[in-house]
Amino acid sequence: MAGSIFGKHFCISTWGESHGKAIGVVVDGCPAGLPLSEEDIQAYLNRRRPGQSLYTTSRQEADQVEILSGIFEGKTTGTPISMAVYNTSQRSGDYSEIASYYRPGHADYTFDQKYGFRDYRGGGRSSGRETIGRVAAGAVAAKILKELGIELCAYTCAVGDIEIDREHFSREEIGKNPFFMPDREAAKRAARYVQACMEARDSCGGVVECVITGVPAGLGEPCFDKLDARLAGAVMSVGAVKGVEIGDGFAAAVAKGSTNNDVFVSRDGVIGKETNHAGGILGGISDSSTVIVRAAVKPTPSIAARQRTVNKDGENIEICIHGRHDPVIVPRAVVVIEAMAALTVADVLLDGMGAKMEHIQKIWGV
Amino acid sequence: MAGSIFGKHFCISTWGESHGKAIGVVVDGCPAGLPLSEEDIQAYLNRRRPGQSLYTTSRQEADQVEILSGIFEGKTTGTPISMAVYNTSQRSGDYSEIASYYRPGHADYTFDQKYGFRDYRGGGRSSGRETIGRVAAGAVAAKILKELGIELCAYTCAVGDIEIDREHFSREEIGKNPFFMPDREAAKRAARYVQACMEARDSCGGVVECVITGVPAGLGEPCFDKLDARLAGAVMSVGAVKGVEIGDGFAAAVAKGSTNNDVFVSRDGVIGKETNHAGGILGGISDSSTVIVRAAVKPTPSIAARQRTVNKDGENIEICIHGRHDPVIVPRAVVVIEAMAALTVADVLLDGMGAKMEHIQKIWGV
Amino acid sequence: MAGSIFGKHFCISTWGESHGKAIGVVVDGCPAGLPLSEEDIQAYLNRRRPGQSLYTTSRQEADQVEILSGIFEGKTTGTPISMAVYNTSQRSGDYSEIASYYRPGHADYTFDQKYGFRDYRGGGRSSGRETIGRVAAGAVAAKILKELGIELCAYTCAVGDIEIDREHFSREEIGKNPFFMPDREAAKRAARYVQACMEARDSCGGVVECVITGVPAGLGEPCFDKLDARLAGAVMSVGAVKGVEIGDGFAAAVAKGSTNNDVFVSRDGVIGKETNHAGGILGGISDSSTVIVRAAVKPTPSIAARQRTVNKDGENIEICIHGRHDPVIVPRAVVVIEAMAALTVADVLLDGMGAKMEHIQKIWGV
Amino acid sequence: MAGSIFGKHFCISTWGESHGKAIGVVVDGCPAGLPLSEEDIQAYLNRRRPGQSLYTTSRQEADQVEILSGIFEGKTTGTPISMAVYNTSQRSGDYSEIASYYRPGHADYTFDQKYGFRDYRGGGRSSGRETIGRVAAGAVAAKILKELGIELCAYTCAVGDIEIDREHFSREEIGKNPFFMPDREAAKRAARYVQACMEARDSCGGVVECVITGVPAGLGEPCFDKLDARLAGAVMSVGAVKGVEIGDGFAAAVAKGSTNNDVFVSRDGVIGKETNHAGGILGGISDSSTVIVRAAVKPTPSIAARQRTVNKDGENIEICIHGRHDPVIVPRAVVVIEAMAALTVADVLLDGMGAKMEHIQKIWGV
Repeated sequence: MAGSIFGKHFCISTWGESHGKAIGVVVDGCPAGLPLSEEDIQAYLNRRRPGQSLYTTSRQEADQVEILSGIFEGKTTGTPISMAVYNTSQRSGDYSEIASYYRPGHADYTFDQKYGFRDYRGGGRSSGRETIGRVAAGAVAAKILKELGIELCAYTCAVGDIEIDREHFSREEIGKNPFFMPDREAAKRAARYVQACMEARDSCGGVVECVITGVPAGLGEPCFDKLDARLAGAVMSVGAVKGVEIGDGFAAAVAKGSTNNDVFVSRDGVIGKETNHAGGILGGISDSSTVIVRAAVKPTPSIAARQRTVNKDGENIEICIHGRHDPVIVPRAVVVIEAMAALTVADVLLDGMGAKMEHIQKIWGV
Repeated sequence: MAGSIFGKHFCISTWGESHGKAIGVVVDGCPAGLPLSEEDIQAYLNRRRPGQSLYTTSRQEADQVEILSGIFEGKTTGTPISMAVYNTSQRSGDYSEIASYYRPGHADYTFDQKYGFRDYRGGGRSSGRETIGRVAAGAVAAKILKELGIELCAYTCAVGDIEIDREHFSREEIGKNPFFMPDREAAKRAARYVQACMEARDSCGGVVECVITGVPAGLGEPCFDKLDARLAGAVMSVGAVKGVEIGDGFAAAVAKGSTNNDVFVSRDGVIGKETNHAGGILGGISDSSTVIVRAAVKPTPSIAARQRTVNKDGENIEICIHGRHDPVIVPRAVVVIEAMAALTVADVLLDGMGAKMEHIQKIWGV
Repeated sequence: MAGSIFGKHFCISTWGESHGKAIGVVVDGCPAGLPLSEEDIQAYLNRRRPGQSLYTTSRQEADQVEILSGIFEGKTTGTPISMAVYNTSQRSGDYSEIASYYRPGHADYTFDQKYGFRDYRGGGRSSGRETIGRVAAGAVAAKILKELGIELCAYTCAVGDIEIDREHFSREEIGKNPFFMPDREAAKRAARYVQACMEARDSCGGVVECVITGVPAGLGEPCFDKLDARLAGAVMSVGAVKGVEIGDGFAAAVAKGSTNNDVFVSRDGVIGKETNHAGGILGGISDSSTVIVRAAVKPTPSIAARQRTVNKDGENIEICIHGRHDPVIVPRAVVVIEAMAALTVADVLLDGMGAKMEHIQKIWGV
Repeated sequence: MAGSIFGKHFCISTWGESHGKAIGVVVDGCPAGLPLSEEDIQAYLNRRRPGQSLYTTSRQEADQVEILSGIFEGKTTGTPISMAVYNTSQRSGDYSEIASYYRPGHADYTFDQKYGFRDYRGGGRSSGRETIGRVAAGAVAAKILKELGIELCAYTCAVGDIEIDREHFSREEIGKNPFFMPDREAAKRAARYVQACMEARDSCGGVVECVITGVPAGLGEPCFDKLDARLAGAVMSVGAVKGVEIGDGFAAAVAKGSTNNDVFVSRDGVIGKETNHAGGILGGISDSSTVIVRAAVKPTPSIAARQRTVNKDGENIEICIHGRHDPVIVPRAVVVIEAMAALTVADVLLDGMGAKMEHIQKIWGV
């Protein structure tokens, strides 16, 4: 496959370029009978929309979603759900300059190498706008999960070296600051940090965390389709993500077995764990505690400062990238990472429907 | 799928439990005409074999591979290659105790939850012996890559908090110490560190790195099947891995755009990069510089110290895990991670065969 | 997967209902560098458009295709091609009657059983309009194949019991009669036959054949992904198709080995076959002679005559189906079957790119 | 993929050549908790074993299956089931002659074209022995289905032009004659017919039918993964099959809508159909009546009579094929076609587990 299809059961097929007519996604495999409206999707898309703060690109896009198929009388029919967002703010500018060279940290060079040429307008398919399809589909997945009591919550836990204080964690705070940080004080410090980056014509990165509660035990397949493997692949597929952790992640590498093992405990007949270093996954299968995934996001490669690079003729040149760019991608990556986690869990959940004869008897037994 | 199949073109199907008759793999999609012998496979399997040092389980297994199909007159035929390793050292011991409770940090509880019961002998399918199939198939993938000038090299870069000194990096050293570290001094310190863990009836983790050289530009698909996404999923699927990084990984999250961007430079008409923070991948597609992937490995969950846990009746109990266990899994994970990287790159490379009409004309044109 | 995705490399994801806003398809895996325009697609869609003769439904639809992504400066970019056709002629009529019962020969009952309810307007997803996505994507596949010298030609070889005379076969004739028959006299007889059916408020079926020339030897995989198996699955997936044959098909079952075997002959060093009972495929792999596939199409289930059936309350009732229906689906199935064959061959061709090391060296070798 | 993997959920990966060490299959995706033993598998394999009558090859093979993984205490564990049959009767003869030319009707030429060379010993991977893996896996699938009340029954309905008389259909008779025909008189005539073929150093074909009862309504996906499309692809993938029909098949092409439509009737609140021209499938989805699939099998291409062909040097030659060959493949194809139908239905059934929210709530709801 050519890379724009995700999932084995809950399959999404995304399409669209930054400066094309539209961007969208087809969801094949959504179960029938789920109440779904454009409002459900729009609520997610609004979280990734540009132009919402000083710290995101000033490109103004309504990013209004249209559902073209798969819904009847307010419910999913089990057939493909096609969703599209029409591009409205493509600047008709001159792209001949950007077409002629390779921006450092971008996919210009690699697309040219792979395909022989590229749609250079606004990054084409490698633009951040590609994530619109992921988020729209993720909203559908999240709605399925919610019906089952599974909820996702993603937020920024670091901007550059400004980290949240876990003691001051507040879910309510997440939506109240432009960085989607669950710690008001950290968000204030992050604002100053990003402001300084912008003044230096530079950019910065950060870390996004997603926690998933209500996941039943038993999701994920042994071996290659472990829940953590699926999450890692899904989250690393988001542009700019350079690292993924489950539970304690790299900190586990310096821990001891005696402290890293989560002790099982039984309380009133219910089995749980005293700690959650494992991030809710043992042997690749969910253990019913909170699933925790974390992603390292690199600094925005488009910076205003002068940079050296190479043009298509193989000449060493200097460039200045103009235009609308986020000084930090992290806040807009939050909902994208949540969407990828939702898509993964929904897909793994459907994948696990036939794990035991007892399940099959429940659905198809006489 | 149920998780034991990996790859889209170079597809492997692994099978086998720790205490079953045999463990193996079927490779479907290996191109015809590759010289291949059991020696090629055995060389890889020997690198993961137990009982080779003080720091690995004393379970003695020859792990002798047998090729059952797909080879004719010394070459692959293009049809499935079936490989098996017969188990010879299963202890016929009493497993009734281990069957009755859930070991912390293991998949006992989650397998029971998923399937209703489990093969508890030696961990069953969740045993480290499952990786034999991965390594055997990885040896085939690595041989294909080698014919194309692509070479993989994996090693341990940290054991607990003992890290290698990049200044003293030596490939020759890797095979000379029990930890597969490319730094002799670090390996000595690691030995003392692990020894101390063993004496404390405890275990430790570490970090494995794999570098891949000779990768042509253009491998990887945009969006979901990015080369880094595929590598992350593949490496995270190895038991005990809790984090994956590409290039600078989490360090990129605290860098600035101006320093994290790799400058393109042209030398004698050849385009390259001055640095490689990106780890050889831009926009999910290889850029022809070295691909770098890193994995955090958790401490062995089986420790000799007394631990609290829960039994199948939901009672809180205390246990002591007896038997043969590696105090640190890291050294044995090295070849497994290399194998997964080889499988991924081979698969992505085959996936990219039809990326442009020019390729297709080369193969099928009149 | 939920069934609306086809192909392993040249992957298409179709969507849309008869009375929804639009119908379309996303093609993921089209190689970069193929010249492609809306005219290329429209030419195919026009062949399946209703309202073109006395013998097709009078529903008038322009079925104008719009390409929304994946093309830049007149060429495919290698990224997903999204295509949509907006529905314009949905009658706003009252569907409450049709919603209440199960039409014989239709999918009403089975959709209700599978999903719990259905979009009953015009057949919803099970409408013949679903094939718009197939045909649009098939046009892209056919264009790739044409660049490689592979051409497809489908036509009607029987309407009811009116068969073409192979002696009078004429490709030029195909486009000149409403049945797409390659035999003018047979077409005239078919017209009379269908006219009689219409007068009897009845419908009829027929047989469609597709021949594919220029197929290089070596396409198709052994075992499950044989070229004939892939074609059979693809063609049988077209609504109303009840049988598929390759080459002599069922006639081979009554032949002898001595006559059914195609003798290999060498002429001027070129190996060919004297006959083609096999329909261009041996052991599931193309042998470079013409590939021949044939499909049996059932009579249109919507007939004007009174029929007995059951309603949703489980009562036995009598119904009369009103509205616009083709008395024979066969002519409109012709381009759909050609499209499915094109999609299959393109996919199998891409699947076979890495069959031998020599191929891989040609693309990725140093 | 390279063609030896079948299924999306119940995935089988077959391997092995006629004259290799062994032949086998790995089943990934069998639900946990199914009682399964080697006897279950052997019963199926015995039905395809050679040397059982005058009309099958005299090659004597015990074809004893060994289960190597995936079973614990008599039940499937949900992890891969690996099964192998060791080859014991490979003649060590001289294959240099057969290696030098292309047998008409065989895959010799196409394998050479595809892969550059071939394992010519006994047909290599294109040998009928390849079906051992299919049958072993099919036995597992059939056992799952049986637990759900779904039963398969395949038989020969024609040998050459000797057809069974549907009036004399008897299931009991099937196992009592060497052709697996459900009509004793037809079997006698078939014996004489095949005898005459053998005397003429010729071979013949026939038709196999498989009926599946107890299939619940709702199996199969709309569009490309229709139940009939999946069955057609699966059955056509069996070597020597040249045509596939569902229900009335090609006879439907000459029927009228008024007679081909199956009338729905309600009896005591249960909805059924008066007839079953559709073969149990409407719109690609099972309707709870008997599923009927039929396959045309070509005459054995290996005949004793002298034949013209071409050798590898491109010279026109004459050959005589010696050795052990079935004069008619049909009887041995019966269990293979049944196995493919079982694999398909099991896979489609697992595919449909998540068709509606109600199903998902049943498995994962809180």
